[in-house]
Amino acid sequence: MTEDIGLFDALYSQRAIRYFKPDPVSDELVHKLIEAATKAPSGGNRQGWKFLVIRDQATKDVIGDYYERGWEAAYGKDNPNPPSIQSHVRRSADYLARHMAESPVLIMACIEHDGGPSTMGRGSSVFPAVQNLLLAARGLGLGSCLTSLHKRYEDEIKELLDIPENVETAALLPVGFPADNARYGPTRRAPVEEVAFREKWNQAW
Amino acid sequence: MTEDIGLFDALYSQRAIRYFKPDPVSDELVHKLIEAATKAPSGGNRQGWKFLVIRDQATKDVIGDYYERGWEAAYGKDNPNPPSIQSHVRRSADYLARHMAESPVLIMACIEHDGGPSTMGRGSSVFPAVQNLLLAARGLGLGSCLTSLHKRYEDEIKELLDIPENVETAALLPVGFPADNARYGPTRRAPVEEVAFREKWNQAW
Repeated sequence: MTEDIGLFDALYSQRAIRYFKPDPVSDELVHKLIEAATKAPSGGNRQGWKFLVIRDQATKDVIGDYYERGWEAAYGKDNPNPPSIQSHVRRSADYLARHMAESPVLIMACIEHDGGPSTMGRGSSVFPAVQNLLLAARGLGLGSCLTSLHKRYEDEIKELLDIPENVETAALLPVGFPADNARYGPTRRAPVEEVAFREKWNQAW
Repeated sequence: MTEDIGLFDALYSQRAIRYFKPDPVSDELVHKLIEAATKAPSGGNRQGWKFLVIRDQATKDVIGDYYERGWEAAYGKDNPNPPSIQSHVRRSADYLARHMAESPVLIMACIEHDGGPSTMGRGSSVFPAVQNLLLAARGLGLGSCLTSLHKRYEDEIKELLDIPENVETAALLPVGFPADNARYGPTRRAPVEEVAFREKWNQAW
């Protein structure tokens, strides 16, 4: 337990963990993850987020199967021109796609909405909370990562989990203690100079 | 400067800061905010995020004007049935809408995309980074908040800032040192028991 980790330590060492020990994750820890999520910004303080905590193996198996099919369609054998991703990311993401159902806990982050079309703006109401959850996992010595390939089967997943019409799933978060070969950060990122502009687009920082 | 703040301290005391001192915010601090943002999860490590750092008063004035019009249309006098928001949130958000241009720095967070429709999923590539930036602001003693009412003038804003076709703005982040009347958290949030379900929707945690 490393609950006292510094903010910047956590920000700079959070990374996608996709290999987990089989050890169970207690309700107490899951509660802490979700509570941290609820402290994120919420437009008009509406707090439309919901978190489904899934431990049932049969349900995890079904979700894992959809996830693997989503992976094959997007990055795997069912896509003749898969997007280019770094080899180490591909390797671990491919592993996760085949072992999602073995994650000790799956958390499905959802967002209630007004029935309008799904726009990027809707994401502003839930992904900050997801990021808080992922940072809290880092702080508690847990691993997780932000996945969304289940979205290709949104309707089926919603039916499986009894999710109502006016709710959209946002992220499927596998949670567990990191396996011995899974390490926290640092992540490989472009320097600020490549992503920051001054005053207008393309004006060098 | 409180760069050593603990992770959970930051998560639990971050809140929207909408009143700022006029004191300038150095490039060094802005650099730290953006660097923290780049440590967020990025699908396939694509890092499609960009951050426009705006200090020019004329540009801030134009953006502030659009923002205020967006506020009036969504929550103010131009909406006969404005959404219900808590009175203290309305008061400070109304203040910000009229004083956005006085923010020492505006950061426009953007995301490159493939030209497809704007969906919630696109937000998963940028709002975790925005949340990292907001947490870093908390850690550095700065204030900010996640706003998006400028989106009602997306085309005009993109033209103003020379933002290309395949890029969408995600969030307008005013940044400054908190005014004396602006305090960090805690935020008012529903307990975990109201937002967490076990196994399926509506099954009590």
